[in-house]
Parts: sequence; structure tokens; C-alpha cells
Amino acid sequence: MRLNIDLNCDLGESFGVYQMGQDADILPWITSANIACAFHAGDPSVMKRTVKACVQHEIHIGAHPGLPDLQGFGRREMQVTAEEVYDMIVYQVGALRAFVQIEGARLHHVKPHGALYNMAARQPELAAAVAAAVYDVDRELVLYGLAGSELIEQGRKRGLRVAREIFADRMYEDDGALTPRSLPGAVIHDAQQAISQVMSILERKEVMSRRGLVVPLEADTVCVHGDNEQALVFVQGLHQGLTEAGLLVKGEK
Amino acid sequence: MRLNIDLNCDLGESFGVYQMGQDADILPWITSANIACAFHAGDPSVMKRTVKACVQHEIHIGAHPGLPDLQGFGRREMQVTAEEVYDMIVYQVGALRAFVQIEGARLHHVKPHGALYNMAARQPELAAAVAAAVYDVDRELVLYGLAGSELIEQGRKRGLRVAREIFADRMYEDDGALTPRSLPGAVIHDAQQAISQVMSILERKEVMSRRGLVVPLEADTVCVHGDNEQALVFVQGLHQGLTEAGLLVKGEK
Amino acid sequence: MRLNIDLNCDLGESFGVYQMGQDADILPWITSANIACAFHAGDPSVMKRTVKACVQHEIHIGAHPGLPDLQGFGRREMQVTAEEVYDMIVYQVGALRAFVQIEGARLHHVKPHGALYNMAARQPELAAAVAAAVYDVDRELVLYGLAGSELIEQGRKRGLRVAREIFADRMYEDDGALTPRSLPGAVIHDAQQAISQVMSILERKEVMSRRGLVVPLEADTVCVHGDNEQALVFVQGLHQGLTEAGLLVKGEK
Amino acid sequence: MRLNIDLNCDLGESFGVYQMGQDADILPWITSANIACAFHAGDPSVMKRTVKACVQHEIHIGAHPGLPDLQGFGRREMQVTAEEVYDMIVYQVGALRAFVQIEGARLHHVKPHGALYNMAARQPELAAAVAAAVYDVDRELVLYGLAGSELIEQGRKRGLRVAREIFADRMYEDDGALTPRSLPGAVIHDAQQAISQVMSILERKEVMSRRGLVVPLEADTVCVHGDNEQALVFVQGLHQGLTEAGLLVKGEK
Repeated sequence: MRLNIDLNCDLGESFGVYQMGQDADILPWITSANIACAFHAGDPSVMKRTVKACVQHEIHIGAHPGLPDLQGFGRREMQVTAEEVYDMIVYQVGALRAFVQIEGARLHHVKPHGALYNMAARQPELAAAVAAAVYDVDRELVLYGLAGSELIEQGRKRGLRVAREIFADRMYEDDGALTPRSLPGAVIHDAQQAISQVMSILERKEVMSRRGLVVPLEADTVCVHGDNEQALVFVQGLHQGLTEAGLLVKGEK
Repeated sequence: MRLNIDLNCDLGESFGVYQMGQDADILPWITSANIACAFHAGDPSVMKRTVKACVQHEIHIGAHPGLPDLQGFGRREMQVTAEEVYDMIVYQVGALRAFVQIEGARLHHVKPHGALYNMAARQPELAAAVAAAVYDVDRELVLYGLAGSELIEQGRKRGLRVAREIFADRMYEDDGALTPRSLPGAVIHDAQQAISQVMSILERKEVMSRRGLVVPLEADTVCVHGDNEQALVFVQGLHQGLTEAGLLVKGEK
Repeated sequence: MRLNIDLNCDLGESFGVYQMGQDADILPWITSANIACAFHAGDPSVMKRTVKACVQHEIHIGAHPGLPDLQGFGRREMQVTAEEVYDMIVYQVGALRAFVQIEGARLHHVKPHGALYNMAARQPELAAAVAAAVYDVDRELVLYGLAGSELIEQGRKRGLRVAREIFADRMYEDDGALTPRSLPGAVIHDAQQAISQVMSILERKEVMSRRGLVVPLEADTVCVHGDNEQALVFVQGLHQGLTEAGLLVKGEK
Repeated sequence: MRLNIDLNCDLGESFGVYQMGQDADILPWITSANIACAFHAGDPSVMKRTVKACVQHEIHIGAHPGLPDLQGFGRREMQVTAEEVYDMIVYQVGALRAFVQIEGARLHHVKPHGALYNMAARQPELAAAVAAAVYDVDRELVLYGLAGSELIEQGRKRGLRVAREIFADRMYEDDGALTPRSLPGAVIHDAQQAISQVMSILERKEVMSRRGLVVPLEADTVCVHGDNEQALVFVQGLHQGLTEAGLLVKGEK
């Protein structure tokens, strides 16, 4: 029996003269990219370049729509309505899709960014709006969301394929939620420990919580970062560990 | 022999709480709408509403991409590169197209807005960038541009169908260019005179220039405005005049 | 014994080509203006024009800083930090003050706008940040805030003069808070009833709550609107009522 | 006889999560800073931090207002009116001044950024608008502009103190203008040659043009960059050369 896991990373977060991330370095080690759509990061020229790079590396291309808050990098929650969320998702996904189609590729998935991701993980109404927008733009798109979240729930309800996302370097609570960053130990800094956690989730469908409980958790995709030297080393280690375990298979396009 | 002329109008120029235009009033009298794409005017929610209204009225829907200058309403020329123009057109047209497809309709055309329209009318490199972007997004799209302009020239060269646009209420120079607004008489305020000018262009393929010369000029579409009471009266008069002359036929979708 | 009450109104909310409000009509009837500072509404040119108009009418000029959310008109709450609030207040107040000083006038007060006003009414840390910013820019400035709110409390604590604001056309709860707009009866549509409520608060320092309780409430300033015909009629009625009652005295500049 | 020369550098160009420049490294080597004002770069929080750092290093603090074009970093010329320029300068300078005053310091100068700098160097009407805005905000401010430019001319005419700026690493034409970047040799890459050019201008009030002509040129300030390792080495070399020549004296505040 062979499993299949996806390694996804946020790319295309540069803006104008401002550089962010090490997209070229991370591309060989991931299987999916979430490309910023110019609301919280990115601009049309960065989007085009990033799409081209992903096509060259045969990476699954996803849209990474965010809140209209460039200064806050889309990380500040905003009191937006479900309708506003629907509209901003359609807009951003449509914009990115145009660049993807021009390269002869097909948009594969949508993953909301930052505060929008977190809000949609908790609030059913916003989650349903995200799912509806993705479905309406193209019902073949895969919806990426936090494993166990409201977004995954609403995506399924709408009839979308979903990808349950886990974080290699984040601790989990007894209920399967991420340990809030404000608590000690929320972020796992040891690469080996992080890789072990991913392996455990993938092979045994369970994770050890912060308080030592064995918690059931299933995943389809692992979120990785590539924006500094250490992150890159970690991704390479994760890539190697998964490959050796026979878990990583580049997905069909 | 029946001719066919298109009446196009810029719609969807409201933004957030800011209202602009009388879109509902103008819709019954036009055959094509150019919808702002949130760079110089409009926002995703306004775009969705405007697309829905156009579909209800069976209007040809076009994208109306502009420069990223909300405060200047896209009317201030900016020193953008051809590549930047290509990228901003792809982005905006892709975004609007998503809303159009959700409504089960098909995007019909692209008309650059304001300063982008003027720059593309004069500068071959920018005009070629606009044409390439439109072609790459969907080669079935019709490119709207100033009759006799570089944009029309480059659109044809690229292999696009083009629509040569005239202005009912603007005076023309001996070379077929619009009389600059800085010159006296540049704007025709008398509705009957404006309608006569349109009729002359459509029926005889010529216009009387500011200096009294008969200048050859062909047109496929007439730009009208509907943002005030007087403009609306004018559009209705033009619509009636063209209908009586057998020139106005609602186009096939 | 003569009382003194201030009628304040938000002005300068136009942006670029977008018009909002009827500033010229409202100016004769108010004693203070809160001028938008180009984050949620307004732009530098609108600010200059509005300052000039206020100086001509000898109106107290206040800064009306808001969240950086033009599309949402600053009405959508954002998860900003206290430091971000401090910084955005200093920035906006400094910008407006420059226009005021150029006209030979002096900035009189600061009133946060929309979501920022509401957040600062409830959250002590944000309220303290607003108060600190205002104090640091100019300790002579008056801080306008919701009567009974955290913002008034923190302003006093910081050593600022404060102006407790009431709303003529909003219903109050038993604890002196505004009735949420989601509840029936939250907005008072009858002008006479609204004027009576203001009179009651000013003369007897109490208001009748939605549930019929007599609630103590003191006020230094009344917020009025002037963005439609009805609002204007209401302001004129309020102005007349207060003048006849000897309550309205144009403040010393 | 001791001369006095100023070394100025653009600082505070980071924005939100986006980092730019090496402000901490450059601060010990310069005498004046031009701080971005959140139109083309910077944000209120970056402005505050940068002002604090400049005060600690006892650097002259200047406002560095730019065009409202974050994506283009204020480098794309825009067709703005003289009135728009006046208004955007007042706004940005006022905003920065508030942060400076809070630190107990005094704003020293204004230097327009990028495209605004270049447009004001050539176009008398825009140059006059910049000068008027600076003068109206505070007539004690020093106006920095390209040596020999229209901006310097209009600043003097308005009654402002001006600082004529030269570029160490740019070649000059026979008429004293900068060699356009499109021409070969426009940028001087050799640090020693650049330092020599500065020395020549300061000591002999003349520069050798690209075509070998000796051209008269006077300067009050030298623009340096500190945004990469090489630039930093160059600044340190220039600082040492000027100090040894007795030309660099930290200015009176």
C-alpha cells in the first residue's frame, strides 16, 4: 500500500520592489504552491512570474486569496460579511486563474490566507462563503483548509474535494486544534521532532497533543515554509523522510 | 441593407459606500457595458452586482481595466512598462471573467479605461501589450479602442476582432483624432448636433472636423455616458434616432 | 445659568471623483467638524478644501482618523494592535493639522471614526493608545468619545480634556450603551422625538432607555449627520430647539 | 577655512512585513535622513521607529514625500496637477512632522522622492508647488533638490533655504544634468572614482562630464545609498575621505 502526501507552500509574496521568500529555492521540494493574489501580498507581475516558475517545476498551482490588507499582510482579522468574502475570493481566484491558463496549466486548488484562513476555520458562515465561491468559480478545484476545521466541513457539504492541512512545526491541543501561538511550546523548533509528528499523523492518523494525549488526526497536505535558511533545511529533511517512507509521490496533474 | 451599431457605456464605477453613475437607468438603452475591475473604480461586490444586472438586460459584458489609481479614477497617465500593462490587464480581465462565468454568461470584450485607453491609443508598445493580454486571456474577446488609434491597429495585428469607438459628444480634428479638451468646442453640448454627428459617421463614414474638413471615419461602437440626467436624455435620443434609422440592432450574444 | 452644547458632524468624506455628504449645507448648523484623514475616507485635496470651508464658517476643526480600509469606509473592525492604533492616529492627526495650521487655525479635537471609535469605546488598551497618541501630538486637543465609554475614561486618565458624545437619533440601553442596530427601535426616525431626547439629556442629564428606565447620561457634544435632505432638516430643527432653549452657544475658538 | 558637507540617505522604506534597506548600518555614517511618508514606501509604524533611530544618532531628519504608488515605489511618473502635488506634500510632511515632534526633535528638511523628485527637477509649475507646500508647512525647512534643477530655483524664489544635491555614483553631462541611466557609463561602479568625483565637486566646484568637459557644479549635500553591502562600504569610504579632507562636519541641529 502506498500513501500519497502533498507538501504545500505559500509563494509569490513579493510586492513591487519588496522581495519576500526564497521561491526558487523551495520549488524543488514541494508538490503544491499557494500563490498570493495581490490583496495581502503579491502583484500581477509577481503572480505571472510565480505561475511560470510553478509550471516549470510541475507543481500543483493554487490560489491563495487573502483579506484586502497589504500593510498587515492579511494577518489582521477584519469584520467582513459572508458576501464580501465570497466576492473577494471569486475576484482573486479569477485573476490568478487567468495567468495559469495562459501558461497552458490548470488551477488546482484554493487555500485562504492568514486571517481569512483562521476565520473560515471557525465561522461556519464565512467557511460556507469560501466554499461557495470556490465551487462557483470551478467545482473541480480542491479546497485546502485546516484539518478538522469548519472550512473542511463546509467544503465537503458544498460538494468540493478538500485537502486537510496539517502543520509540521505546530503543537496540537487535545481537541485537534492548533495550540495558540501565545502558549509556550506552540511552535516546534526541532526539525526531527516536527518530521516525526508529520510521520505519526500520516502513518497512524494520530498526533500527540501538548498535554500528552493521543488525538486522532488525518491529513492530505502538509504546510511548509521556505522563507529562511532553516526553513529550507527543514523542508529538505521532511521531503527526504517522506520519500524514504514511501509517502511522498508527486501527484497527478 | 441593415447596419448594426453598438452603444457602449462604462458601468460599475461605484466603490464601497461611494455611489457613481446611474447604472439601472442607463441599462435599457445600451447594448454593451464596460465594467470597472477594481483598479481605478469598482470593487468585487460592485462587479458582481453589475454583472448580474447586465445579464438580466442581455447586455454584452466587457472588462474595463484601468491603471492602479483609485484616487485619480485612472485618469492620470502613469509611466508604466509594457509588461506592467500586460500583467494588469490579464489580472483585471481574469477577475471580471470569473463573475461573468458564474452568471452563465460569456465575457464579450475588453476596453481599457481613461489614461490607459489614451496611452494605448498613441503608444504602439503599450497598445501591443494590451492586445497581447486580451488575446492571451481569450482570443475570442473583442478589443474596443479609439477609431483610428494605435490600439485598433495592434489589436488587428495580433489577430483580435476590434471595435472602433467614436464619441458622439466630442469634436474631431482634421486627422481624425479627438479635439483635445483644452481647445474651445472640444465637447459638443447640443444633443441634436451630437446625434447628427453619429449619424453622419455611421451612414456616410465621415465626420466634419472642427476646422470644417470632411474627414473619413468608420465606427463599430458609440461611447455614451449615463451619469447624469442630461446624459440619460441624450442616450435616449440617440437610441431613438438610431432605431428609427434602422441602425441599431441588438447584437447576437 | 447658560449651558453650552456642541453640535459635531463628520465632514470631508469625499474621495477623488467620489462625492459624499452635503458639507456646504451642513456647515451653517454645526459648531464642530470631524474631518476624515484619508485612511477610511477623504484625500489630501478634500482635506484642504474642507479645512478652508470650516475656517470660513468658524467651526471647531477636529481630526477624524480611521482604520486603513477605504473600501469598508472604516466601518469593519480590524484586529489591530495598540501600537498600530497609536501610530495611525499620530500619522493622520499630524497630516490634518498641517492643513489647519496653513489656514492660520488651530486643531481643536480628535474623534476616532467608525470601527475605531467602537473598538476604543470597549477595549481599554486601544482606548489608551488613542488617548496617548492624541496627548503626544498636542495635549491641548480635546478627545471626543462615546459618553460613558472606555475612551472617555482613558482620555481623562491621560490628562486630556474630553467631550462626551451622544447621538440624537439612537436609542439607549439601561446601562447607557447605544442599542445595537440589530435590535428593533435602535434608530429614532422621528425628528421631534430625537430632539426631545437630546433636550432631556442636556437639561436633566438623563435619558429614557429602550425598556423605559430613566438612565443618567451626561453629554458635551451631539453627533449629527448631514448627508441627506432629511438629516439636514433634522439638524436645523435641533439647532433651533437648542438655540431657543438657550443651550447652544457657539464655542470660543 | 572649513567646508561643511552633508551626507543624506533615504531611510524608512520598509512596509508592513516587507523589509527594505539596512537603516541601522547606514545611520552612523550619514548626517541627514530622508524618511518615507507612507505613500511610495513606509507606514506609520516604520516612520515612528525610523524617527526614533535618527534622533538617537543625532541625524538631521527630513520628510521624503512621494507619489501615491506603493507598487511602483514612487518611481513611475504620474500626470498629477500642481495642486495635487501641493496637497500630497503638505499631507505627508505633516504626518512625519508629528512623529518628529513627539520625539522632541524638529523636522529639518524635505526632499521629494523618485518620480516626484525628477518631475520637480524639470517642471517649473510642479517645482513651485513643492516649494509652496514646504514653505507653507514651515518656512524654516530646507528644500533638498537636484543641483541646478528647477526645484532648487523655485525653492529659492519662494524664500526657502535650499540644499543642492549631487550623486557620487552618477555621471554628469556637459550641461550639469545627470547622464540618463539608459546611456552607457551613467552609473559609476568604482568607489574610488565616485569619491574622487565628490571631492572634485566639493573642493573645486566642478565636475568632469561624460564627454570630458569641465563643468561647474556646486553642492550642499551628497546622496548616498545604504541598501546593500557594497553601498555600505562605499559610504564608509566616502565618509572617511571627506573627514580626512576636513570637509565633513556634523551639522548644527
